Amino acid sequence: MLTCDACGRTAESGQRCDDCGEPLWFDTDPDGVAWPDRDGVWAFGDLLPVEPPPGGLAAAAGATPLVRASGLDAGGARVHVKIEGTNPTGSFKDRGSAVGVAAAVADGEGGATFAGDGAPDAVGTVSHGNMAVSMAAHGASTDLECVVLVPADISAARLRRIAAYDPRIVRVDGDYGRLYYDALDLGPESGIEFVNSDSPLRVAGQKTTVLEVLRAFATGEAGGGVGGGERGTTEAAPDVPDAVVMPISSGGHASAAWKAVREATAAGLVDDPPRLYFVQAAACAPVAAAFERGDDAVTRLEGEEVGETVAYSIANPDPPSGTRALAAARATDGAALAVDDDAIHAARRDLVAAGIRVEPASATPLAGLRRLRERGAVDAGEHVVLVATGVGYGGTDGGDGRSGSLDVETVPRSGLAAALGLGDAGE
Amino acid sequence: MLTCDACGRTAESGQRCDDCGEPLWFDTDPDGVAWPDRDGVWAFGDLLPVEPPPGGLAAAAGATPLVRASGLDAGGARVHVKIEGTNPTGSFKDRGSAVGVAAAVADGEGGATFAGDGAPDAVGTVSHGNMAVSMAAHGASTDLECVVLVPADISAARLRRIAAYDPRIVRVDGDYGRLYYDALDLGPESGIEFVNSDSPLRVAGQKTTVLEVLRAFATGEAGGGVGGGERGTTEAAPDVPDAVVMPISSGGHASAAWKAVREATAAGLVDDPPRLYFVQAAACAPVAAAFERGDDAVTRLEGEEVGETVAYSIANPDPPSGTRALAAARATDGAALAVDDDAIHAARRDLVAAGIRVEPASATPLAGLRRLRERGAVDAGEHVVLVATGVGYGGTDGGDGRSGSLDVETVPRSGLAAALGLGDAGE
Repeated sequence: MLTCDACGRTAESGQRCDDCGEPLWFDTDPDGVAWPDRDGVWAFGDLLPVEPPPGGLAAAAGATPLVRASGLDAGGARVHVKIEGTNPTGSFKDRGSAVGVAAAVADGEGGATFAGDGAPDAVGTVSHGNMAVSMAAHGASTDLECVVLVPADISAARLRRIAAYDPRIVRVDGDYGRLYYDALDLGPESGIEFVNSDSPLRVAGQKTTVLEVLRAFATGEAGGGVGGGERGTTEAAPDVPDAVVMPISSGGHASAAWKAVREATAAGLVDDPPRLYFVQAAACAPVAAAFERGDDAVTRLEGEEVGETVAYSIANPDPPSGTRALAAARATDGAALAVDDDAIHAARRDLVAAGIRVEPASATPLAGLRRLRERGAVDAGEHVVLVATGVGYGGTDGGDGRSGSLDVETVPRSGLAAALGLGDAGE
Repeated sequence: MLTCDACGRTAESGQRCDDCGEPLWFDTDPDGVAWPDRDGVWAFGDLLPVEPPPGGLAAAAGATPLVRASGLDAGGARVHVKIEGTNPTGSFKDRGSAVGVAAAVADGEGGATFAGDGAPDAVGTVSHGNMAVSMAAHGASTDLECVVLVPADISAARLRRIAAYDPRIVRVDGDYGRLYYDALDLGPESGIEFVNSDSPLRVAGQKTTVLEVLRAFATGEAGGGVGGGERGTTEAAPDVPDAVVMPISSGGHASAAWKAVREATAAGLVDDPPRLYFVQAAACAPVAAAFERGDDAVTRLEGEEVGETVAYSIANPDPPSGTRALAAARATDGAALAVDDDAIHAARRDLVAAGIRVEPASATPLAGLRRLRERGAVDAGEHVVLVATGVGYGGTDGGDGRSGSLDVETVPRSGLAAALGLGDAGE
């Protein structure tokens, strides 16, 4: 069953609340849930809405390393890095794609969100970055078609990277931000299970990032165990990290982190949950701005309010789970904050110098931690987990063996329904 | 202690046998060794010559997914893929780098191979591909300098990819193939622990690829478990895979696979060990040629015997562990074989279409399996593990945030000693 955390409404299918418009979540029963003896998305099956598919890429999602990186300690705060770039397509997106595709494969049984008649014929997503690559790969490992809606002006390198897995790509000319909502409207009727940035299935998969972090601290694997502690000391990590710092774009990963913390707490696995901090690039920081203003909801940034940033993959002016993330930051005594591109560049250089290569967006947590330490929001001696969300080859031409131009259809936004086989025009 | 598997000589330090010239291996004591309850390089600590370092990237090596990929089944042979591209720098090389750097950090205690006076001041490697990137990253996560010897004509993209981690890079003008041996000669005196493609430390780390594979089958995690079996069936995988197919270049990974199989067998963990198959690109296949001729040793290919191949990262005309790999193929009832570029391209396309993106060299095992199946060397119903060694962004410009030209020293091969601070010229 699905519930709206904002207003309490329940639903059998769908992705957002019919009453208040906020994203739906899958209900879970934390009763009797214990830490699994290993990591990986499916290790947390007791808290997932669907069984794993019997093979394929879904099995490879998650189980990413958590490393103690003392060279990155910030004013005495102890830094651990969760390296999500080691997922099969190089980002945390594989966690949600694995669950989303598994649900679609399961033919609508067992908690899928699909609101159409019968089972979905395809999976889909609205993305031109890591999520598009991830969904295309996970779709490819099953018999389901994958539909990827990209903006008309997508770069050739990005297009090629997605096209390597041979999904159906539709370039849509028009307001790309609204496509998220178009997909929710059109998906059920066109037989496509859209697994977007904060869909309930994706959030269910993405919560395993922080479940793995909490498990590592609870079981003593973090900090004091292999790869932990400080050189020459036997310092042990605490049972729970003091804080988790992660980038925020749509808010889907941020709200998943909150869900993870709440479920672990409800199961009695965590006593004193970590503070959650969400970091944006200053050029496009609607969640941080709302947090600083003390607002209850995030307001969409318009036109000239949005600047350019090196952390382009998290530059979302209208985050569909922004308001949920705002609630998460407040409820956990954390914050949303913004860092400028100079700070992001410096943090990225330092991560690479510590052996950890990340895309610019994934350097924002270290930049954010440094600001938080300066402000006194994080203390010396605290153990802080930075979520390095991706390695960032999604936007490059990684040599996929293809060459020449790609023949990809382009439709106006008003023609999307017809392109998906709906309405008079058909396909 | 180190031993030569070819002639039985033992040594306290060094990398190759003083008597017969073959590579040395670390002795292990399989007595009482059991399967660990998880994967990862350090999970197999009972069989490693050094303790893990207390933090840093070394902790993140290994623990890669093994996925059942029924879409790649070849004439009824069941295909499992070990996805090494999910290592922190994108290839299996991180396993050996982790152990090599850990040994250097441990100041020569506990089984390092360093033959110089005292502890090494630096780690080093001879590589312009995945191994260079891996060593630079693992070096960066410690306090040790890392020296990377590259050919003078290295591409700008590759150079940039290595330089991102800020190692000392030396471009050497001359016979690049001989640099492997130059490094062994110069390393001890110049204070550099060279961890090359088949150094004993690297082999110790790299054997964990196949140890993880064997563990997964033995514990029931492969095939029949999560991500295993065939859609709609409950087929279980056997306790041991029937065969492991992997690319071969220097022979360091191949001989490590053999070491893994032998240690697991000696420990009583495996009854009927898998056949080991090693695949080369036809354009540069000295090991396959020697296998087919029935030779006991691999002969270096010269000049026009070496062609171009898309699988450039395994095109090694003079593999320093080629003879060892030949022995491994024969002893396990496997083979060394070659596949042409068309077959590699086709295999790579099919892997990507199954959601698994690999570099061309990592597609050779699938191409090889297809040949083996045609020949009848692999039967329908057998379970075969393909080792997908890397994701292949090592040679691309992955957007590391740097720009402009790189100022890298170039020395003639005859000037390498001086560049490393030895001889009259000093540094």
